This record gives sequence, C-alpha cells and structure tokens, in this order.
Amino acid sequence: MKNQQILLAKRPRGPVQEDDFQFVETDVPPVRDGQLLTRVHYLSLDPYMRGRMEETKSYAAPQPLGEVMIGGTVAEVIESKNAGFKPGDFVVGMAGWQQFDVSGGGGLRKIDIRVIPPSAYLGSVGMPGITAWYGLTQIGKPKQGETVVVSAAAGAVGSVVGQLAKLYGCRAVGIAGGKMKCDLVKGEFGFDECIDYKAETFKADFRAATANGIDIVFENVGGATFDAALARMNAFGRIALCGLIAGYSGQPIPIQHVRSLLINRLLLQGFIVSEHMELWPQALAELAPHVAAKRIRYRETVAQGLSSAPRAFIGLLKGENVGKQLVKLV
Amino acid sequence: MKNQQILLAKRPRGPVQEDDFQFVETDVPPVRDGQLLTRVHYLSLDPYMRGRMEETKSYAAPQPLGEVMIGGTVAEVIESKNAGFKPGDFVVGMAGWQQFDVSGGGGLRKIDIRVIPPSAYLGSVGMPGITAWYGLTQIGKPKQGETVVVSAAAGAVGSVVGQLAKLYGCRAVGIAGGKMKCDLVKGEFGFDECIDYKAETFKADFRAATANGIDIVFENVGGATFDAALARMNAFGRIALCGLIAGYSGQPIPIQHVRSLLINRLLLQGFIVSEHMELWPQALAELAPHVAAKRIRYRETVAQGLSSAPRAFIGLLKGENVGKQLVKLV
Repeated sequence: MKNQQILLAKRPRGPVQEDDFQFVETDVPPVRDGQLLTRVHYLSLDPYMRGRMEETKSYAAPQPLGEVMIGGTVAEVIESKNAGFKPGDFVVGMAGWQQFDVSGGGGLRKIDIRVIPPSAYLGSVGMPGITAWYGLTQIGKPKQGETVVVSAAAGAVGSVVGQLAKLYGCRAVGIAGGKMKCDLVKGEFGFDECIDYKAETFKADFRAATANGIDIVFENVGGATFDAALARMNAFGRIALCGLIAGYSGQPIPIQHVRSLLINRLLLQGFIVSEHMELWPQALAELAPHVAAKRIRYRETVAQGLSSAPRAFIGLLKGENVGKQLVKLV
Repeated sequence: MKNQQILLAKRPRGPVQEDDFQFVETDVPPVRDGQLLTRVHYLSLDPYMRGRMEETKSYAAPQPLGEVMIGGTVAEVIESKNAGFKPGDFVVGMAGWQQFDVSGGGGLRKIDIRVIPPSAYLGSVGMPGITAWYGLTQIGKPKQGETVVVSAAAGAVGSVVGQLAKLYGCRAVGIAGGKMKCDLVKGEFGFDECIDYKAETFKADFRAATANGIDIVFENVGGATFDAALARMNAFGRIALCGLIAGYSGQPIPIQHVRSLLINRLLLQGFIVSEHMELWPQALAELAPHVAAKRIRYRETVAQGLSSAPRAFIGLLKGENVGKQLVKLV
C-alpha cells in the first residue's frame, strides 16, 4: 500500500511558496504489535504552522526539512494491534500531511462522531475552539456587558471567541477582511458588529463599533488593526495575544500606541494553547454542548485531496479561507 | 504669614518649560477646628507629574490650571487643632509645590524620623520604593537566579528594583545614561551590571550583560531600550510597565519586537502604585528594615528652595538627576 506524503522541502524566504513543499509516495510500513494504522480523513491547516517552518527561535522546535509536514488530523483506524483502538474508531491526532500513519497510539484521542461531525474536532471542538476558550476565559476574564474585540473573526478561532463572548453576555466586535466575511461574522456567528479592515472607512467604523471602548482584545493578526484596538482600550483592559499572522512572513508589525498599555494599566499575555493541556477537558466540556446545540456555529473551507494542501495553506495565510481551513483526503 | 506657591500656568507643548509654571505669594489661611498647619521640608519630584500636566485621557484627573502643582511632600506640623497631630510631628502627604499647607489631616501619614531621615519617606520608603516593590514582586514574581532588567536604574524607583532583585537572589542588570550613573548603579546599589544607553556599544554591552536572556523587565522609560529588552526575553518572561518617560513629551516610542510577546508567551502589565494602597503596609514593612540597615541604599539630588522646582523637574525629565529628585524648602 502506498502513502502519499508532503514534506517540507525548504524554509520559506518571505511568503510561503508551493515549491517550499515536496510531494512523495512511500510504502506504508507494516503494523507491529501495539501499533495501529490510520487513514487520514481531514487535515487541519492552521496559522501556527507558518512559525514551525522557520528555523528561528520560537516556542516549538522547527519543522525538520525533508520530513512530513506537521498538522492536526482526524483519521479512521484501519488496522489495529493495539488494545486501545479498533477498526472504525475515529481519532484526532497529529499525523501531518499524509494519507496514512502507523503509530503506537500515543497522542491519539478517540472522538464520538455521532452528534458532532469529524471535521469539527479540528475546529470548534478542537484546538482552535480550545484556543478561543483559553484566551477569552483565562486571560480575558469577560464580565457581562464588556466589549470584546477579536481579529480574524471569520476564522476558526475568532468565530468561537465572539460566540463565546456573546454567551457570556458581552458585546462582540469582529474584525475581518471584506464584506462577505463580515456578513458571515454578524449573520451566522451573531457578533454585534464586524469591521472590514479593508474598507476605507475602517477607522471611523471601528470607532463607532467600540463607542464604549474595548475591555478585551483577542488578537490573532497584529499590525495596524491591533494598534487601532490598543488605542481604544478601557482602563484595566486585557489582551490575549494568540497570533500575529500579519507578521508571519517577516513584515514589520510595530505597536505605536504603547502609552495605552501604561495609561490604561493593561494586561497583555501571549499564550500557546498546547501548553495548557490540563484545561482541555474543561474547555471541551463547555464547547461540545454549545456546538452540538448549534449555539456555537462554524464554517469550513475544504480543499480536496492532499495535493491541494500547499495552495490551501498559502491561501489561509492570505486570509482567503472562511472559517476553518481543512483538506479532505477521503 | 505668607505662603510661596507654584501654580501650573499652562499645559506644555512638547518639553516642559519653566514658564509653564507661575510663582505666587498668598496668605496662609487661618487654622480652624480639626485642621492643622504644616511647613513643607521636602518636595518630591516624580515623572508621573508630567502626565498630570496633560489634558488628555490618562489614569488620573489632569492637574488643574491655576492651582498649586501636585506633589508628594514631607512636612512638619507647625500648629494643630486636630487631635491626631501635634507640633513637631513629621508627616508625608501631598501638599504640592508650596511652603505651607492647611488641611484636615486626611491623607497625611505620620513618619518616624529617628532612624530613617525624612527625605527617604519620599524615596525608598515612600511611593518610589513601593512602586519598585509592587512591580517586582506582584508582576515580576522573581525567582532565584533569574535575570531582572530595570531602566532608569539610577533613579528613585529603579535603584530599589535592582537592590530588591539582588535580595531575592536574582541577577540585576540596570540601564542608565552615562558612566557616572552606571558606576553608581554597580558600585553603590550593587547591581551585577549596568549598561549605558548613551554608549555606542550599547547593543553589544546589553547582549553581554544578558547572556542568559531576560526573565523580568521593570520598565520606566520605554522606547529603544525597552525594545532591545523585549528582543532578549526568555520564555514566560514578565514585564512590569511602570513608566514611559521617553515618550512623556509626545515622542514616538514604538515597539518593534512585538513577536517576542507571542513567541515567548510574555506577560505585560501596566500599573499605577496608588491603585494598590492595600499593599502599601506590606511593602513598607519589607522596605523599611532594609533601608534602615542600608541593605537598600539610596541617593538624592536635592534642589534648594521652592523656586528651583520647575528647573529641577525639567532636569528630572531629561535624566539630569541621580537617585531621588527632591526640593528642599527648609
């Protein structure tokens, strides 16, 4: 049996290019005692992967060159010599950009796909949803009536941030690129407002949407929109710094409104959700019923076939996707 | 009896000028029942006053025009019709830029000047010392062996930060302007290193002094040196943002190394010590024995006479003082 895989061929200089990746076909290794073979159904594409492609100091070891590109996956057990799994089980794991994976089962989490579809375990009831929950509840600590601003609001993380904020009784203001995304953020995800950062009227729109100032920022993007939010913070505001996608290809993303951090006694905390695994059960216990009952809704952009992954990933970094970016392999 | 006073005459445009202030002489009002008359011995000059001179939104109401300029003071009770005070008592309060003050005694704190001299109650056992203690212990949370960097290290706050850090078993690295200040920071205050931000070799010196990275930044200045510190932070570093004196006249003080906040999962917290009065007793209980035993040392720059206050304040904002800037009135 053959296994299609995509390796990281070279480290990007500036924006990611398709030829930074290499497509290969290998043999699926035999399944030994204690191991299991899974077939990947969905591959998750996430902004954090861009950081792993760099060799510079970051919070995680860089993705090695010449190895299968990192990535979260939902997979089905095909064959098992491990008592913990049986064929037909669905699991979430980190199989990466490939069709098949043989592993010892470590790091695999079985999921129940009867109520919630498999792909959602890579989104609103997976790492992105938990990221939203962690930053909002553990750093933002929202109180009823406060204003929460989230960038990349149509994305897998941002859309959950705003919907949770509404469930906590907050005013949710999204920032997204383009009318289509903003309509989705307000219409489908129920934010109070969504500001189009590409519109010429951005500054005035943003002021109007945050007339009472901002209490919590959940930041995914950085750059000019983050700076605009800083300038409108209320006293004792909190900033959960989750991502800086605007700077992932080396663009400068300076902060001008540094004074606001002092004058408003702001708290800013950078975080990585994978360092808070002890809270994942609590987060999932809160998220799953909301998702099952459609109190938290989600959208997906699904690319077809493993070979589409590089282009879909490049699109994600440019904001071309809406909601969770997936690659469907089966 | 006449009372010399200095009023805020106009709001500064850019750097503070002497003619932003106005010198007046008024009659000392009579002392009514419940009141007391104090004579100011020392006036405290502090960077926060620059913020109060602005009309823009800040953490405190602006200093009103045409009124006595705000300021901490050590004063002696001259006459008292208040059972809580008797002539000869020394008190810390906020009498401002004037020779005499009649008040009801609210906000006055009696001090013991037998072991610790009166002026120190405006410095290492006063607001600046408590500021140092609060930011370092409550935000920085120092652990033995960590590296603490503090800007304006020769100043009233910075010098205490470094000395406390040493008492907690940390490596203390100061940033100050000029060889004279740096010699003081190392020689008198016992920091491990002090980097001269005016030296051409600043970047290399700073790297060498923080070879193991930085765990805690206590920031008083902002601007380029703060940005340099951000770039050298270790994972899970903490930043106590206390002041931004580099930007107090409207200069841009952007942060370029925004990525470090995310990559290193940094915590940044702006704070104002006057909002944490509940911790002042705890802070003073820790600081006073250290100061009395000279484990925490201090330096003062003392201007003579009330009329020297404006020029001394302008000098403070330019970093011309060493240690605590005082004005001696008696």
